Amino acid sequence: MKLQVTQENLHKALGNVSRVANAKGTLPILSNVLIKTDGKKLSISATNLDIAISHFVGSKVETEGSITVPARLMQEFISSLPSGTITLDLNDNKLNITAEHYNSTINGASAEDFPEMPEITDAKTFDIPARQFKAALQQVLMAASNDESRPVLTGVYLHVHEGKILMAATDSYRLAEKELGETKLESSLLVPASALQDLLRILGDEDGDINVSHDDQQVLFKFEDVQLVARLIEGKYPDYKTLIPSEFSHTATLPKNELVNITKVSSLFARESAGSITLNLDSSKQEVSIRSVASQLGENTATAAAAIDGDGSITLNSRYLLDALGAIDGDEVQIGFNSKLEPCVVRPTKQSDYTHIVMPLKS
Amino acid sequence: MKLQVTQENLHKALGNVSRVANAKGTLPILSNVLIKTDGKKLSISATNLDIAISHFVGSKVETEGSITVPARLMQEFISSLPSGTITLDLNDNKLNITAEHYNSTINGASAEDFPEMPEITDAKTFDIPARQFKAALQQVLMAASNDESRPVLTGVYLHVHEGKILMAATDSYRLAEKELGETKLESSLLVPASALQDLLRILGDEDGDINVSHDDQQVLFKFEDVQLVARLIEGKYPDYKTLIPSEFSHTATLPKNELVNITKVSSLFARESAGSITLNLDSSKQEVSIRSVASQLGENTATAAAAIDGDGSITLNSRYLLDALGAIDGDEVQIGFNSKLEPCVVRPTKQSDYTHIVMPLKS
Repeated sequence: MKLQVTQENLHKALGNVSRVANAKGTLPILSNVLIKTDGKKLSISATNLDIAISHFVGSKVETEGSITVPARLMQEFISSLPSGTITLDLNDNKLNITAEHYNSTINGASAEDFPEMPEITDAKTFDIPARQFKAALQQVLMAASNDESRPVLTGVYLHVHEGKILMAATDSYRLAEKELGETKLESSLLVPASALQDLLRILGDEDGDINVSHDDQQVLFKFEDVQLVARLIEGKYPDYKTLIPSEFSHTATLPKNELVNITKVSSLFARESAGSITLNLDSSKQEVSIRSVASQLGENTATAAAAIDGDGSITLNSRYLLDALGAIDGDEVQIGFNSKLEPCVVRPTKQSDYTHIVMPLKS
Repeated sequence: MKLQVTQENLHKALGNVSRVANAKGTLPILSNVLIKTDGKKLSISATNLDIAISHFVGSKVETEGSITVPARLMQEFISSLPSGTITLDLNDNKLNITAEHYNSTINGASAEDFPEMPEITDAKTFDIPARQFKAALQQVLMAASNDESRPVLTGVYLHVHEGKILMAATDSYRLAEKELGETKLESSLLVPASALQDLLRILGDEDGDINVSHDDQQVLFKFEDVQLVARLIEGKYPDYKTLIPSEFSHTATLPKNELVNITKVSSLFARESAGSITLNLDSSKQEVSIRSVASQLGENTATAAAAIDGDGSITLNSRYLLDALGAIDGDEVQIGFNSKLEPCVVRPTKQSDYTHIVMPLKS
């Protein structure tokens, strides 16, 4: 293998794929990146067996070939080089890397030992605008669970319901759902949140589409020069739609920033009580007040003017409320609930395509 | 105690002092800040018994008094409040804090149990421009040792030598020295580097002077509304001046950024060898090359054009060389040494008030 590639392109590709390479795993070659000529392109790939990412870069290929090299060293080395042309020249598993003023040899391992990228057969396929997909990930991912004991909740549920593409995640304490436009397809897949975190990290401000194709076991996301393959999670996703109330006996409508501010201050006094804060809706004063008590340290009451419909109170985890508010676009939010033990809905007043639910704590 | 203070001033003062408060110590009250009226001012203080910092802020005092409250909660709470007037009102060790929309009570502990700030008697005193002092700290502090088994090396040596105020630090592997102007005083003090780290953190871009006063046991730094007192380190500082060579048989002069770049890249291949890199000065090519070898991973050679006087090579710790280069002002540096076992001097070519020495490694 001998080829020329620009430092800028190689640097970007290594940055995108090498975080998936894992130096702590049991299989040493998984800490490497695979570098492989593919016609006039060079593919840079890494995998942890659950997720595989490939990034293709233009290059001037003199002779074809492939090799794997340590991902961390390769990435740090290439990112430290000045911009300009880099020559890669492979001799007996030794990769010579030459740039102006720099001459390096990195000892590689044969590409034959690198796990094959899984192939998807008989795929269903659809496109989603990349910007919209990225925004949806930012609004939904935080609600997925980290708890491996209930695998389905560690996934993000991408599915079609009544002609709408929906993205949903829940860890059973909160739930986020975002609409992604309409389709005539029927499709439903449960993608590991960790794979989507990797995808979100890579997504820039692309104007184009993300192509999603999947079979029963795997999903492939393609955009620009990047491909990400992930194993799907097996199992039935909870029928979360039934949890979302459509009417509320108590609502408060107020500027988002004011609710964020009083929630943040209140959370400082809620550390002893695992973040527990109590919201009180007062229709005569037309205000929301939040009270939090730290028995040893003190207590706090914070208030904000709000349009109140129906007096009432509910106790929430302040971190979950802040996560929900952080995910909402727009300047005004509405909090709605029916009783202090039923789900509390947090949503933007001006859009109807995003819903966030926080389950109440016992007060 | 009852008073009004602005959120901006109280926030700044708490930010400056509260990092010294330590929640992990054996004496619980040291995790508190002392809040105390002092005439028309309010003083905010914290101490870890080695260092004490006080910040004075203007306030409208209605009744005098003092209390201590948990530093972390108080700082985070005040920093979360909107700008504007805050009222502090003390009742039975409970500090009521009122701001628009916020009403809080923080449980305090009596100020009588808070350690007294040490007083300095019979002090020597001198002034140093704050900007110059700050720049010197940024150039010298990194060379002080963290190893408590040789306490004198954990200090920064501030002393007068032949009419010049000098600041020096060494951990025995490298040494940094900066001149701070002239004086007719005789003074010599060994200040804990940790206290100066705190001072550096607090120093903004003040135009004024820092007043330094000290007796045999303590030093007080005063500037604007801040006072920092530290215990001095006892013991005799090494006679480091004899280590600094005045002539060199090998020198390389080159743009600082180029030496930084080739050192950074070389250090990536030097991780297995504890950062060991070998600089080679070649007068016929008029270049410096740096070679580093990672037996498992590979090897690298990086070169940069330089004015060379005297061929030779020396092996250095790449981190120490990068620290030295990072501390140097100006665009051009000179590396000088006499043999591969003698100290290597790194200094700016255009100034003579800063010297950095890196001891070589055996190659």
